[in-house]
Amino acid sequence: MNTIAKHGYTLNELAERVGATVSGNGDALITGLATLHDAGPEDLAFLANPSYLRFLQDTHAGGVLIREEHKDACPVPALVLKDPYLGYAMLSQLFDPMAMKQAPTVHETAVIADTATIGERVSIGPHVHIGAHVTVEDDVVIDAGVAIGDGCIVGKGSHLYPNVTLYHGVTLGERCIIHSSAVLGGDGFGFAFNGKGWTKIAQIGGVRLGDDVEVGSCSSIDRGALGDTIIGNDVKIDSQVQIAHNVQIGDHSALAGCVGIAGSTKIGRGCLLGGGVGVAGHLEIADRVQITGMSLITNSIHSAGVYSSGTGAMPNAQWRKNAVRFKQLDEMARRLSRLEKR
Amino acid sequence: MNTIAKHGYTLNELAERVGATVSGNGDALITGLATLHDAGPEDLAFLANPSYLRFLQDTHAGGVLIREEHKDACPVPALVLKDPYLGYAMLSQLFDPMAMKQAPTVHETAVIADTATIGERVSIGPHVHIGAHVTVEDDVVIDAGVAIGDGCIVGKGSHLYPNVTLYHGVTLGERCIIHSSAVLGGDGFGFAFNGKGWTKIAQIGGVRLGDDVEVGSCSSIDRGALGDTIIGNDVKIDSQVQIAHNVQIGDHSALAGCVGIAGSTKIGRGCLLGGGVGVAGHLEIADRVQITGMSLITNSIHSAGVYSSGTGAMPNAQWRKNAVRFKQLDEMARRLSRLEKR
Amino acid sequence: MNTIAKHGYTLNELAERVGATVSGNGDALITGLATLHDAGPEDLAFLANPSYLRFLQDTHAGGVLIREEHKDACPVPALVLKDPYLGYAMLSQLFDPMAMKQAPTVHETAVIADTATIGERVSIGPHVHIGAHVTVEDDVVIDAGVAIGDGCIVGKGSHLYPNVTLYHGVTLGERCIIHSSAVLGGDGFGFAFNGKGWTKIAQIGGVRLGDDVEVGSCSSIDRGALGDTIIGNDVKIDSQVQIAHNVQIGDHSALAGCVGIAGSTKIGRGCLLGGGVGVAGHLEIADRVQITGMSLITNSIHSAGVYSSGTGAMPNAQWRKNAVRFKQLDEMARRLSRLEKR
Repeated sequence: MNTIAKHGYTLNELAERVGATVSGNGDALITGLATLHDAGPEDLAFLANPSYLRFLQDTHAGGVLIREEHKDACPVPALVLKDPYLGYAMLSQLFDPMAMKQAPTVHETAVIADTATIGERVSIGPHVHIGAHVTVEDDVVIDAGVAIGDGCIVGKGSHLYPNVTLYHGVTLGERCIIHSSAVLGGDGFGFAFNGKGWTKIAQIGGVRLGDDVEVGSCSSIDRGALGDTIIGNDVKIDSQVQIAHNVQIGDHSALAGCVGIAGSTKIGRGCLLGGGVGVAGHLEIADRVQITGMSLITNSIHSAGVYSSGTGAMPNAQWRKNAVRFKQLDEMARRLSRLEKR
Repeated sequence: MNTIAKHGYTLNELAERVGATVSGNGDALITGLATLHDAGPEDLAFLANPSYLRFLQDTHAGGVLIREEHKDACPVPALVLKDPYLGYAMLSQLFDPMAMKQAPTVHETAVIADTATIGERVSIGPHVHIGAHVTVEDDVVIDAGVAIGDGCIVGKGSHLYPNVTLYHGVTLGERCIIHSSAVLGGDGFGFAFNGKGWTKIAQIGGVRLGDDVEVGSCSSIDRGALGDTIIGNDVKIDSQVQIAHNVQIGDHSALAGCVGIAGSTKIGRGCLLGGGVGVAGHLEIADRVQITGMSLITNSIHSAGVYSSGTGAMPNAQWRKNAVRFKQLDEMARRLSRLEKR
Repeated sequence: MNTIAKHGYTLNELAERVGATVSGNGDALITGLATLHDAGPEDLAFLANPSYLRFLQDTHAGGVLIREEHKDACPVPALVLKDPYLGYAMLSQLFDPMAMKQAPTVHETAVIADTATIGERVSIGPHVHIGAHVTVEDDVVIDAGVAIGDGCIVGKGSHLYPNVTLYHGVTLGERCIIHSSAVLGGDGFGFAFNGKGWTKIAQIGGVRLGDDVEVGSCSSIDRGALGDTIIGNDVKIDSQVQIAHNVQIGDHSALAGCVGIAGSTKIGRGCLLGGGVGVAGHLEIADRVQITGMSLITNSIHSAGVYSSGTGAMPNAQWRKNAVRFKQLDEMARRLSRLEKR
């Protein structure tokens, strides 16, 4: 697929970029990244998770990013550094064929309001719609089929992938990345029961993203009912995530796939939410809280730490017996107390 | 963002609209809505949830929608009524800058089949596609990038936000709101195993929505296998929801984010499903059933009430110990019985 | 909605297609499919699930696909065969009005790169974008608003419904069906913490689908970090599903709605994952594993069978008492042991 001539770097050049020391011949040319198992002689690999140590001795990589402790076991040149995973992350951009940007162009089929302000070096793909009073800052990429509502601001260097939708009044900081089919600024889920049916509450607030926010494909960030839904700097949101109205998420927090956060909840800074986690509305989650996958949080969490709910998986026949007992658990506890008093 | 001149209303005018009595000066001009905490002197606030009572005494709002019992504690003019939240909902539309509609236009890039019927005062945005034999009734708004399949009917006053997809044979009642990236009428998940692999079951039914249905962003409502998937009047569906083929949902029910309903299940009228709830297929859920967040329902529910499953969240170290015991629960119950017989 | 003249088949013709024997008059004309309950005299119905047996005696169907054991209870002509559900699946395509394809056309508003290769009898809808070096094989249907990134391959006979997005470097086998708002090839969720914030890991791999893969609406299949995310032949993926980077799914597996699979996990062949199931990252799930709805899998599963986690639903008042006891479960187990030693 990659018809572009590959860039190459020597191991010495790569070591310099990540502050590693080279063990072995540093002149070897590297043209790609791969896993220990798949790497060929022009690929750089890395060993971060010790469970992959078994692949080290047979690797055909041209070089391996590795910690000091594993250096001697490495059969090929090593780039020795403290955090091989971070080193790999830092170098990954070099080998991404998509990072070699084409010259920015605005496609003739894009429909852009007269009152929109478009910066320098902006790419706008086919069938894009940009509404009134929108500001698109420099170096932004807007792919095919994106729709941007009135009054939005798209910060410098941001990238909106195909078929993203921003409703009116959505603000993105710099270097934000929004993946396809994601929707920012849709109405929050607000209704009051009027005795006969639901009266809709107009969702008058907006959505504000800080700098360096990434939003995965098919994720939803709803606009505020009153005031904005606010996503801090460097927040990373995976695919299939639902962020309800007036949620606030602190800087550097990361939310894995299928997470749902209900309305007006505040997530602290540096939090890590596992896949499928649900957080009820109107809660406060402290900084540096970590929640394991598919846990449900129905009360505020006041201190950093790891939190969980649920039960482990087991064979269904065994599970059925235990699940039945769960329904008797309170009764069992009472019987236990009675026995203790005998 | 809001470059439109704000509409203003006196407290007296607003009180009349919601049937409130004014306590204090009713001539003050209100130009917006805000929370008690954020409101300025031209904003109307409301006090519905008593936990926000602490913000009342310091509010700078121009007026507050409030219940009789809290009137005396209100430092600013009060609009006194039974249900402040409903009052707020009723007034919210007045202050939505988006509610001031522009003149309806059909964008020149929209592709509309010759056999489609388009009503009066219909807005059709850029890059829309409307298929054969579609009926779009009066006062409908269809935003950029929407695709509408053959034979659909879009009821009077409905609004389809950007990048919505309706497959063929989808019928929307009046005043429906469909948010971006939502998909109505995609194939239900139907396959028969033929001994070697899966034979696809053509999904021949359609999707029918009643009046006043709202569907959140990135939600899916699949078409029926045989016969239609049917959503009643005034049903509210949040973002990231999955409604499988041949599901039926009764009038006025509300489904929060990330809910999933499996095939052929019937949800009653006036049900409330919390975020992330899952309901298995071929079940019947009675009217006025409420299910708390992330519960899994695998049996029909025959009477109104509140239902739950799952376990509460706790610190991970504690949870691990308890989760291990869950796997021993049946054995524990047997040991308990044995002890009781001693 | 269906303005196309219906095709008709005699019961004898239909029986021949599925290898059934006709009991009763085989000359009756059938023009549609319906359930036992809804069928009229020109409809064919089927009885697969015994719980629908109660509808048999009053059916007005023109014929019923049925097993030998129920034949005598059938008041109308019967097509007798071993697997009525499979028979229904095989015939369903005949009666799908959408299966009567229109002549393939490429819409004038589609934007197709000069370097793309488009096969014979390909349909391309309005507002489509096809990038550089894309290969679209024969008999493919690409609906309105679809965006296909550089270097993709869309296999023979595949169908991409409106507003699907394929990022660059995504390969689809033959006869794949991708439903609306689905996103294939979005970035996997990969970041390394650099002490101050997150360093993004470029997602350099792609996505590869085998033949006969179906992907539901609003589902995400992320591209690999290094190497591809790989979906086997005849894999069926429902709506609202999240497949993370470098996941591998074996042939003939089926994933119901709202499933989430975390990164680098391998799902075997012939697996069935119920709605809302979550599987953690870096696991291996054996062939023919079945996981019940909303279970969380955090360890590899080494043998075929049915697996579950969670607790059953119950009235909330009862649940609250039991859920509190779950937090005391380890303590209860210790108390139980102590009692046994008395």
